[in-house]
Amino acid sequence: MNTSDSLSPTARTTLTRLRERAGVDRRELVDLLDSTYVCHLGVVMDGAPRVMPTAFAVDYDGPDRGGTLYLHGSVAARSLVAAVGVDVCVTVTQLDGLVLARSAFHHSMNYRSAVIHGCARRVDDLRERGKALDAMVDHIVPDRSSQLRSNTRKELAATVVLALPLYEASVKSRSGPPQDDEADIEAGGVWAGVVSVQTTVGPATIADDVNDQIQAPSNVDAVLTR
Amino acid sequence: MNTSDSLSPTARTTLTRLRERAGVDRRELVDLLDSTYVCHLGVVMDGAPRVMPTAFAVDYDGPDRGGTLYLHGSVAARSLVAAVGVDVCVTVTQLDGLVLARSAFHHSMNYRSAVIHGCARRVDDLRERGKALDAMVDHIVPDRSSQLRSNTRKELAATVVLALPLYEASVKSRSGPPQDDEADIEAGGVWAGVVSVQTTVGPATIADDVNDQIQAPSNVDAVLTR
Repeated sequence: MNTSDSLSPTARTTLTRLRERAGVDRRELVDLLDSTYVCHLGVVMDGAPRVMPTAFAVDYDGPDRGGTLYLHGSVAARSLVAAVGVDVCVTVTQLDGLVLARSAFHHSMNYRSAVIHGCARRVDDLRERGKALDAMVDHIVPDRSSQLRSNTRKELAATVVLALPLYEASVKSRSGPPQDDEADIEAGGVWAGVVSVQTTVGPATIADDVNDQIQAPSNVDAVLTR
Repeated sequence: MNTSDSLSPTARTTLTRLRERAGVDRRELVDLLDSTYVCHLGVVMDGAPRVMPTAFAVDYDGPDRGGTLYLHGSVAARSLVAAVGVDVCVTVTQLDGLVLARSAFHHSMNYRSAVIHGCARRVDDLRERGKALDAMVDHIVPDRSSQLRSNTRKELAATVVLALPLYEASVKSRSGPPQDDEADIEAGGVWAGVVSVQTTVGPATIADDVNDQIQAPSNVDAVLTR
């Protein structure tokens, strides 16, 4: 229940403080975004918040302030369309460990998370749309887009692409052992420590309908956890 | 980019339909909540959405309609306090695989996610607070709370506990191989399949300040992935 290091919100107003260590945070932000497959997008619909898991991609040299985070989905996805032109929040989280302390209060989690606030822009420019959609695929497997046919006009028409500036972002993390009260440490008798948590990727299973039993290409092979 | 099975929102309005298969969903909901450590809580603050990762616990026989999901944090956590008495959204997601199709459009993810909407209630009743805080710890490691001292009055005063009914919940998932267009399957030449993704737990590392080098208890040992 420890709250100083628990998984809890970064108040939007504290970003001013965090911007002072933007150099540090930027590296952490990039590392976290590059190594995570799914984000949680928050939008307000009918006055209530809605949080949905979705894929994302990043272009650190994108046209938005601080670089661009891309989201995409069906033109029929109400909550994605509702995000256009309004404030949204994208949160990316990696859980690294379960922190088991001597007291319930000091139980915690080791994690890294990024919270990105901004106004979502619908990407209409054809060239940027194409680049963004390639980036979505390449975020899953680097260079995957180069191994695929081009998107058809019909596919493009069915898809909405959103862009979010990476500018207003904050990174928060906890690592290390439990921070117990001195009295609890002295009392002894309770096991305390960290149980690590990892996301492991692989194995890769070829689809049954691949006629030629080709080997997984090296870029697919490279994403597997060794 | 396929949107029929992509990680995208369950429209709140479609819950009526999903309630018709509540029997099925309920089992899926319970399995997902029981096997996940972190949820994403969405609240509206100053008109904008905010999404934060946080720990949670469940009491399926809790006092709220459909059972209770518990959240907790510091009384100083602005966004947690802002959630009291208003509509919030809690989303839980497990990523199971990367779905690599022949076309960018049919790339997808295998996943299970639950979205829970409701009005958050602050838990003031001392007995329910105690039970909820035990459940938070026991959600990480079953029976952990029985191995710890009681919470102090000071610890309890520093902590806010929120309850959310599990009633308005929906579960969404995708599994299985890519669903490619017939023309792309016939054209061949592209590796397609699923790269599995798992959350693995362990090893457990004892804290340096544990004087007596006691073995991890069996309940800690039991959460490790074998």
